[in-house]
Amino acid sequence: MAEASNGHVDQREIENLLIDYCRYLDRMELGKLAALFSEDCRVIYGPDPKLIANGRLALEASLSRMWRWRRTAHHLSNIRVWFDGADQARSESYVHAWHEGTGGNTAIVYGRYLDQLSYLNNGWKITERRMDMNGCDRGFKVPIPKAPRREPPSGWLPPQGLDR
Amino acid sequence: MAEASNGHVDQREIENLLIDYCRYLDRMELGKLAALFSEDCRVIYGPDPKLIANGRLALEASLSRMWRWRRTAHHLSNIRVWFDGADQARSESYVHAWHEGTGGNTAIVYGRYLDQLSYLNNGWKITERRMDMNGCDRGFKVPIPKAPRREPPSGWLPPQGLDR
Amino acid sequence: MAEASNGHVDQREIENLLIDYCRYLDRMELGKLAALFSEDCRVIYGPDPKLIANGRLALEASLSRMWRWRRTAHHLSNIRVWFDGADQARSESYVHAWHEGTGGNTAIVYGRYLDQLSYLNNGWKITERRMDMNGCDRGFKVPIPKAPRREPPSGWLPPQGLDR
Repeated sequence: MAEASNGHVDQREIENLLIDYCRYLDRMELGKLAALFSEDCRVIYGPDPKLIANGRLALEASLSRMWRWRRTAHHLSNIRVWFDGADQARSESYVHAWHEGTGGNTAIVYGRYLDQLSYLNNGWKITERRMDMNGCDRGFKVPIPKAPRREPPSGWLPPQGLDR
Repeated sequence: MAEASNGHVDQREIENLLIDYCRYLDRMELGKLAALFSEDCRVIYGPDPKLIANGRLALEASLSRMWRWRRTAHHLSNIRVWFDGADQARSESYVHAWHEGTGGNTAIVYGRYLDQLSYLNNGWKITERRMDMNGCDRGFKVPIPKAPRREPPSGWLPPQGLDR
Repeated sequence: MAEASNGHVDQREIENLLIDYCRYLDRMELGKLAALFSEDCRVIYGPDPKLIANGRLALEASLSRMWRWRRTAHHLSNIRVWFDGADQARSESYVHAWHEGTGGNTAIVYGRYLDQLSYLNNGWKITERRMDMNGCDRGFKVPIPKAPRREPPSGWLPPQGLDR
């Protein structure tokens, strides 16, 4: 079982937590999903008030919006975890999220979850989640912020002949 | 090396096993792929008899069907493992599987592998594999069952203004 | 912290290294990206001289080519690591890499990174990286080599009725 003093066990537990978020979301088991978060969690998927939830109950209510999709698939990868002491951690992960609407329309987002986590009584919980995205396809319209990306130095010129 | 009593080493070995399935399938090294399964394995990718194999040899023969694709790419993520004692485990994982036909047509499935595993003489083996899918694109026609997803509560109404 | 004699800690460190490559590439933090490689690294993404870099500085300069894309998302999975002694390792991993051009055009490659790694003074570094690909969509034109895949045995016939 988890001990907050063991970084390796903890990283595995945190990875499982992040994966379970995706699994419960695709199954729309929103009560189990909300239990992955602390009671006073703060979840901010973007600046639109519809994308912000304060507290576990609000999160569960808010994510019922995902029923506007007929099916979804959230594939998580690139999980990085950093520990700030024995009971605090931060995480970044990538999600390839596919959505299918009731009319057969689809939307893919290449997102990132940016999490704060705490070890509470019964295990690690997400206390704050933010989201941004590296990109999306044309079907995805939700106003999630752009991930940071450096601009080219002034005067940079693209190489020729790579993309033909 | 693996010891069946060490959950951490075992989880890593099981992850490697699941990853190797994808690697060998994309390379069409079906003998090596079949060796990841127990001799008496049961593999059920769907209700169609063509998608069911009883035993390692039948599995190897059955998966030759993948040669109808010119190229494939099976990207595995969301791996969860649960141990039922020292030598029994269950696993769920997500696969983003891309296929390209000989005519250039493509098909993507957002699938899930649902596995039973046993620690046998020479390591962990998959003893039973089932598959379902969260979804697929229009190019994918194989009759894989749908993953479970809860229906919205009666009277649920979609939020306005998120997808524009 | 890492000790080169502990395979588990080392595998985690190598996974983090491979993930950080993707993170820094999508953020275009090329200095941090280059620091993941040994000074004398050799990076060969394909036979085209534009895809080859000898040394960390050349790699950093070479990858400025990625600014021809407006946004990218490199999702890493299927990470396998093999140790050849305490301070040498090899790795294979899959990358689902999405690119968006300035005109809105997109390109997806289903690639594989084939790495050699060494434990140097300050941790694991990539000393050689090669790349090939299981496939790509029609938007992707970079001449990355094909991953190996066995041909069907002579006389093999595709099964009927699976793809309808």
